[in-house]
Amino acid sequence: MVLLLDPRSSWTSAGVSLSMFLFCWLLIFLADSSVADVIDLEWEVEYMHWSPDCIESVVMGINGRFPGPTINATAGDTINIKLTNGLHTEGVVIHWHGITQVGTPWADGTASISQCAINAGETFVYRFKVDKAGTFFYHGHFGMQRSAGLYGSLIVNEVAPKAEPVPKAILSYDGEFTLLLSDWWHQNVHTQEVDLSGVPLRFIGEPQAILMNGRGQFSCSAAAHFNKVKQCNYTATPQCQPQPLHVDPDKTYRIRIASTTALSSLNFKIQDHELKVVEADGNYVEPFSVDDLDVYSGESYSVLLRTKKTSGNYWISIGVRGRKSTTPPALTILNYSPVPWEKHPSSAPPVHPDWNDYSRSKSFSNKIKAPLDAEQKGYKSPPEKQGRRIVLLNTQHTVKDQIKWMINDISLALPSTPYLGAIKYSLNEAFSQDTLHENYSNPDYDITLPRNANAKISDAVYKLEYNETIDVILQNANMLNKNHSEIHPWHLHGHDFWVLGYGEGKFNGTDLETEFNTKNPPLRNTVVVYPYGWTALRFVADNPGVWAFHCHIEPHLHMGMGVVFAEAVDKIKEMDINNKAFMCGFTGDMFRESFGKKG
Amino acid sequence: MVLLLDPRSSWTSAGVSLSMFLFCWLLIFLADSSVADVIDLEWEVEYMHWSPDCIESVVMGINGRFPGPTINATAGDTINIKLTNGLHTEGVVIHWHGITQVGTPWADGTASISQCAINAGETFVYRFKVDKAGTFFYHGHFGMQRSAGLYGSLIVNEVAPKAEPVPKAILSYDGEFTLLLSDWWHQNVHTQEVDLSGVPLRFIGEPQAILMNGRGQFSCSAAAHFNKVKQCNYTATPQCQPQPLHVDPDKTYRIRIASTTALSSLNFKIQDHELKVVEADGNYVEPFSVDDLDVYSGESYSVLLRTKKTSGNYWISIGVRGRKSTTPPALTILNYSPVPWEKHPSSAPPVHPDWNDYSRSKSFSNKIKAPLDAEQKGYKSPPEKQGRRIVLLNTQHTVKDQIKWMINDISLALPSTPYLGAIKYSLNEAFSQDTLHENYSNPDYDITLPRNANAKISDAVYKLEYNETIDVILQNANMLNKNHSEIHPWHLHGHDFWVLGYGEGKFNGTDLETEFNTKNPPLRNTVVVYPYGWTALRFVADNPGVWAFHCHIEPHLHMGMGVVFAEAVDKIKEMDINNKAFMCGFTGDMFRESFGKKG
Repeated sequence: MVLLLDPRSSWTSAGVSLSMFLFCWLLIFLADSSVADVIDLEWEVEYMHWSPDCIESVVMGINGRFPGPTINATAGDTINIKLTNGLHTEGVVIHWHGITQVGTPWADGTASISQCAINAGETFVYRFKVDKAGTFFYHGHFGMQRSAGLYGSLIVNEVAPKAEPVPKAILSYDGEFTLLLSDWWHQNVHTQEVDLSGVPLRFIGEPQAILMNGRGQFSCSAAAHFNKVKQCNYTATPQCQPQPLHVDPDKTYRIRIASTTALSSLNFKIQDHELKVVEADGNYVEPFSVDDLDVYSGESYSVLLRTKKTSGNYWISIGVRGRKSTTPPALTILNYSPVPWEKHPSSAPPVHPDWNDYSRSKSFSNKIKAPLDAEQKGYKSPPEKQGRRIVLLNTQHTVKDQIKWMINDISLALPSTPYLGAIKYSLNEAFSQDTLHENYSNPDYDITLPRNANAKISDAVYKLEYNETIDVILQNANMLNKNHSEIHPWHLHGHDFWVLGYGEGKFNGTDLETEFNTKNPPLRNTVVVYPYGWTALRFVADNPGVWAFHCHIEPHLHMGMGVVFAEAVDKIKEMDINNKAFMCGFTGDMFRESFGKKG
Repeated sequence: MVLLLDPRSSWTSAGVSLSMFLFCWLLIFLADSSVADVIDLEWEVEYMHWSPDCIESVVMGINGRFPGPTINATAGDTINIKLTNGLHTEGVVIHWHGITQVGTPWADGTASISQCAINAGETFVYRFKVDKAGTFFYHGHFGMQRSAGLYGSLIVNEVAPKAEPVPKAILSYDGEFTLLLSDWWHQNVHTQEVDLSGVPLRFIGEPQAILMNGRGQFSCSAAAHFNKVKQCNYTATPQCQPQPLHVDPDKTYRIRIASTTALSSLNFKIQDHELKVVEADGNYVEPFSVDDLDVYSGESYSVLLRTKKTSGNYWISIGVRGRKSTTPPALTILNYSPVPWEKHPSSAPPVHPDWNDYSRSKSFSNKIKAPLDAEQKGYKSPPEKQGRRIVLLNTQHTVKDQIKWMINDISLALPSTPYLGAIKYSLNEAFSQDTLHENYSNPDYDITLPRNANAKISDAVYKLEYNETIDVILQNANMLNKNHSEIHPWHLHGHDFWVLGYGEGKFNGTDLETEFNTKNPPLRNTVVVYPYGWTALRFVADNPGVWAFHCHIEPHLHMGMGVVFAEAVDKIKEMDINNKAFMCGFTGDMFRESFGKKG
């Protein structure tokens, strides 16, 4: 809580009664814990030496830390971050993943969409409200800077229940942990970008390590005595030493898990312990218990862990699923006090479900539902009527021999002027004004065959009317390689959406709508599309702004796998928007020319 | 020569007489070769896979080439380069090394000094006149992008002598070659930057290879049969195959040699051939003959080579001097037609002078004089009277445990607003308005001892009055390491200067001025300062603009080894300057705020 007292107001006799009044008001203000705070932070992004996986690399850190500092806020708080770009030649932005930015679309932190990248040496102030409790994170959203290590956790706590009357806290637990998951390559991201744009494409390969809160192990292991890899030397490289989760017996813990992986789909498992899923992407869900948890890039979950009545050490393992990966699981220890955490469990780490057991994955996805007491937990019901339907066919094609991901035969290439500024000031020349397809351009498209259709690179957008209900069908298909279709976790900026359902094969229209779950669909900001399948979601376009909707796999987005929603264009033109976000491209030219014309 | 004919003008009967007139005018125009051209170029900077030294790396190329395209112009031409930044997250600028930019200080291409870096995805147009013939080059001047490979040659030819009357060409030769020299590391420059800023500092080490026109050999050699290193496989990696210099017997060739090395001081030698030095940094010099040629980073030379009357193949070797380097010399072949160039010379490559034979180096430096017919060759005499003297003491200190290079106890850190814009619009808050020392702050300073004085990081500048004569004494001293003093080639933007002389030890004032050479000092834009010695130079501040003056060793500049001259501040305020250079920092804010206030 930041209280700015005017130094000129003093306790002179003339001022006493007013001062006393202010003092009392202040006491009331402090006593009411529901009054929102402003959280003031000053951050500097810099490259630095770091050993995330026991091998020294250069990471993109914040204030000398990797991952960046965890933000701990309370619902309703305003976050005010003065971000200085301490890189030498690169621009930078930070996206606040899962925060809807109602009224502050310029603070969404997506380069070319909501703002110009912050120049090296310059400072930009993000100021936005975190209106809802939940497990969030933040990350770079310019080039592949997320892969370079620019990320951290953003935890928004429930407003503490007031003493009287007595509404209980929505979740009750004795302690909590935050685990931000990521994957790590030794190759620097500039080279990765060149590799992915290469002719022929050079795949970046599987990551060298999975990281938990920025800590993983390459070619050494915490479970060396079980898996024949050498024991890690944490004295030499403490930065990669796993953080054990210290617990007491017979208690309940909340574990907040979020994934900002560049590539990997993950599975989270604690040896001999069940996990009760209670939150997904900052939304409560109807609780259900599992032995392990699938987490796709862009997703977050909270699970409740009930500890045993005895003590001991148990493996916590995070393995790769969804692709046949060579990357070993990340390991740490669930440590019951007072056993020393360094004492290894007597059995090997748990084994994760098969990487390609998609029916298990789908079964997990289908368990996630809105809670029974949805309204109490901040849920609105989805409009029951089907909205404007946008079918997004996910394919792969070549353009000038480069392999690109395509949505309805368009590969997204971002413009140099941020859409938000271009739209606010009606600078139509800043990006293509083409109208994009909203359905299969070829209704007979066979999603099981690799094809090269009328592939094109473009920066055109989908324009959404204010308050329009939007149904999106994400339709997966074959890649250019025969008999290959990959998992894509799609993330929407500016919104949560209701997940209406998942289906196999090609979405073929209205007859399937009867199967949509409009009764208790979960709210999320990220949803997975399974190989050769479709996923349906719905949202109401009630948040004026320009919002990216894209596959959260970093190389896929780099290769064009995303679309842009320009929402309530007329409202954007009327909004009060921070012009500091637009000091580049056509908007920058507009400012400069205005200067030239003045006086 | 670019001729734009209006497509609407046609040979209709009504238009014939006008068209005939235009046609005749065109013939006259073409016949007069002294009419200046506009050279229009469109360039895009991109990272790309390349094997400069037979090992694949990622280089910063232009239009898919490394080094960037050679510009071939004629004195008086205007260069008009539309430069698009095709990097993903980095800004970019290009500096036109040796071009004085009279009237176009915004086109000097130095980030934070003459312009804002061009944002990723954006385009900036450099437009400037090359007013003088000579051997120049261009390179990145933002962060360490020069080290990343952003460079190329810029050759300005003499205006061809007119038929009548008959002034001879200033130099007469039968053919010419251009050799741009550089050094190459496998470590990417982002990591190099972090290493150099590290506590403790991590030195980037000696380069993996010396490159000639972007071609060198790592762990293999063109002279494998002499030096026991394996033969390079140029079929597998043609990008590193040396370019032989094909010559005919009994002819004269001009070899243009320029060095854009990040670190290395070089020595150029052709087996069994003498070299006649005729040009230094775009200025003719009184010709003199040598067996080998020292070339420091930032320098350029032309040598005339008289070929033998017999034929054969001879080694051309470029070795490192000035530091004890592990980097082997770069090799290519002087090939006499019709001998095949692949046939190796029967003897080993020539040996370069000892790396630390400074008396030999100094003797070479002292041979460079203005030509006897100086005026005919474009020389002005220096003002004989001593000007305002600025002594620049070159030392090394630590600031917050980081090792920095210091000039008069100040390590240069560039501001986020370009000085040129900040000065034009009197935005004094954009950089420190401190007055800098112009002499030893401690007159008793012992240059042979490592010291840590009142070291400070600053972006303050030296302000020079219009037409003021400036004498600069570059005073070298001990580094932080005991008994170490290094070579520093200092480069001045916006000017050539007269080199008045070199001295040993500490410059102690007026008594030494009598030794200054004001009779035939050579004009240069780069000059070397020897260990524990001083170098004196003079120039007239007749070019309004803001000009960097710095050590051309890339890591040294990165560590603060430079100063900034703000020249004729009042004139800058009145100049017509391209505001597109200033779309960042305080100047950008000024434009934006003007927009906010309009209407």
